[in-house]
Amino acid sequence: MALTPTELSGLASRIAPVEDAWLQAGRARQDDLTKPPGSLGELEAIGVRLCGIAAQCPPPVPSNPKVIVFAADHGVYAQGVTPWPQEVSVQMAAGIAIGFAGVCVISRAFGAGTEVFDVGLLQHAEGTVDRRIAAGTADFTQGPAMTVEQALEAIGVGIEAANAAIDSGADVLVPGEVGLANTTPAAALTAAFTGRSVAEVTGRGAGADDEMLAHKVAVIEKGLEVGGVARLVTEGDAVGALAAVGGFEHAAMTGLMLVAAARRVPVVLDGVVSCSAALVARAICPDVVGYLIAGHAGVEPAITAAHEALGLRGLVDLGLRLGEGSGGALALPLVRAAALIMNEMGTFSGQGVSKA
Amino acid sequence: MALTPTELSGLASRIAPVEDAWLQAGRARQDDLTKPPGSLGELEAIGVRLCGIAAQCPPPVPSNPKVIVFAADHGVYAQGVTPWPQEVSVQMAAGIAIGFAGVCVISRAFGAGTEVFDVGLLQHAEGTVDRRIAAGTADFTQGPAMTVEQALEAIGVGIEAANAAIDSGADVLVPGEVGLANTTPAAALTAAFTGRSVAEVTGRGAGADDEMLAHKVAVIEKGLEVGGVARLVTEGDAVGALAAVGGFEHAAMTGLMLVAAARRVPVVLDGVVSCSAALVARAICPDVVGYLIAGHAGVEPAITAAHEALGLRGLVDLGLRLGEGSGGALALPLVRAAALIMNEMGTFSGQGVSKA
Repeated sequence: MALTPTELSGLASRIAPVEDAWLQAGRARQDDLTKPPGSLGELEAIGVRLCGIAAQCPPPVPSNPKVIVFAADHGVYAQGVTPWPQEVSVQMAAGIAIGFAGVCVISRAFGAGTEVFDVGLLQHAEGTVDRRIAAGTADFTQGPAMTVEQALEAIGVGIEAANAAIDSGADVLVPGEVGLANTTPAAALTAAFTGRSVAEVTGRGAGADDEMLAHKVAVIEKGLEVGGVARLVTEGDAVGALAAVGGFEHAAMTGLMLVAAARRVPVVLDGVVSCSAALVARAICPDVVGYLIAGHAGVEPAITAAHEALGLRGLVDLGLRLGEGSGGALALPLVRAAALIMNEMGTFSGQGVSKA
Repeated sequence: MALTPTELSGLASRIAPVEDAWLQAGRARQDDLTKPPGSLGELEAIGVRLCGIAAQCPPPVPSNPKVIVFAADHGVYAQGVTPWPQEVSVQMAAGIAIGFAGVCVISRAFGAGTEVFDVGLLQHAEGTVDRRIAAGTADFTQGPAMTVEQALEAIGVGIEAANAAIDSGADVLVPGEVGLANTTPAAALTAAFTGRSVAEVTGRGAGADDEMLAHKVAVIEKGLEVGGVARLVTEGDAVGALAAVGGFEHAAMTGLMLVAAARRVPVVLDGVVSCSAALVARAICPDVVGYLIAGHAGVEPAITAAHEALGLRGLVDLGLRLGEGSGGALALPLVRAAALIMNEMGTFSGQGVSKA
């Protein structure tokens, strides 16, 4: 049963802004740790943000991370925007369920559980949780990718998944994805919600060459026009814009982020799909941004554009373009270290180390 | 008792180059993993390098990392190259021994042990292993920082520490350091061994302002001249150059790297001090470079210069400038993930996933 618009705005209304008082407390504690001010760089900023998210200083140490992967297929695949065969989506999703995929290896290394939801693959992938909305979205160059009801239903799957994970003790979430061609809707959403040109935010995904890249830009421009997306964004109809050019996994991730923010749980963003979903979530509720941490810096230009729009900076920058949630999972130990530092390092006030 | 030059060349002669056949085997395995080629970015390069280092494919997974911190003081402190009081060296070393320092927190988070050697603090720091060579080096603007015998003795401490750690099961080493003013000798060594100008490789360390930075450059230029360092480098007298403008911790790290390379154990470099020590180690034995992994990218310009000279790229880039080994320790989970990926991911040859 689809989420209703009323239920969605109810969820958004339960998201409180990250509290400035706790950010200030975090900043003060950083400056009391026995180190030259600022010498732990971005780890300090993450530590402070964790204080704001948890409304607690020092912040709780994330010890139960969960990577939640949403798998789906895309009608726009038919436009020839990726060199990979479409059945790879199902194979990858099944591979994650078995535990052989890159994201599984990285997650296990850092003590994170992995769960895969089929939100609309062409065929159901064995071992994944069945929350299929349809056998792929429609081709957005011909009409909306999803109906608004389908988009709400997919957001609902993300809400359900995040709530279940947090109820089971997850204290940091990484949204991952599988879906051939899904960087195409991601770039469309990024252009729509950042106001950048399609050419600026469109990248090669899992291996488009120059010709395919130019074609991908044209496909996305057509989709945005066919869907009337600029108008929907201007009118504040974020779900409408998502339905027009997004994917089921983008929608599910949007729901996941809204729940995490409402429940004060940090979300570590992965690549282009999660970043574009974050832009949708922000359009639904601007306060969600305070609960987001950027895991991996951009290979795809849409990541950089989204990070800039969200005011975030990727914690790692290793040229990953695997997707699945792998870039977010890879940042988990750094987030954990940032929290531990605020809990376990000595303080000037406590230990009498000489200051400069 | 000091290491003899003959013992040092004996150690260097036991370093075998990283084997090309194993690098090729690693590369072939990366291309067989179920992912688009190259999509794991730098993690692939690290995985391949680990194959070469261990002469094994897939490579062993580092599971027993050890951070070895060398603490010392510096005569050049008297020239006013840092705003911090010199007694902070002893306080920091003692703080690491107790376990309250930043590097301890990060190391513990990633299952790494930490050990601190006093190789020449002004006063012995409680809780550290006493391998004191002198109460600080001499001021290198007035004459050599160390005698050649002292430099060899300090290299010997690094050799002892690395051998003991590897004998106890350590399978990856991170060299760390403590020592007020030690970015000054590091910049001097970096200029000497990369051929760059002092101004190019000198940074602010733990907090020099513009005026102090200009003064630091002048101090280093004087030291290189007084020590006749350019001539020593040209003549291939790496230990002589190290003695002229280096520090006890730089020397100890050089010894650590030579042992690690001889015993096929990877070394994850930290900041400016370890990078400059790597340049000295390379001058003693060029094959050492194959065993080095760059942990943190440069805030200090000497790191960037050294990485370029060594052909390395930092795994993380979080603006850390704490020292202690913290930047190297922070990269440990990424190195571990790189090894696990090669061991645990599915393969095209084994699983029948469709290729592009």
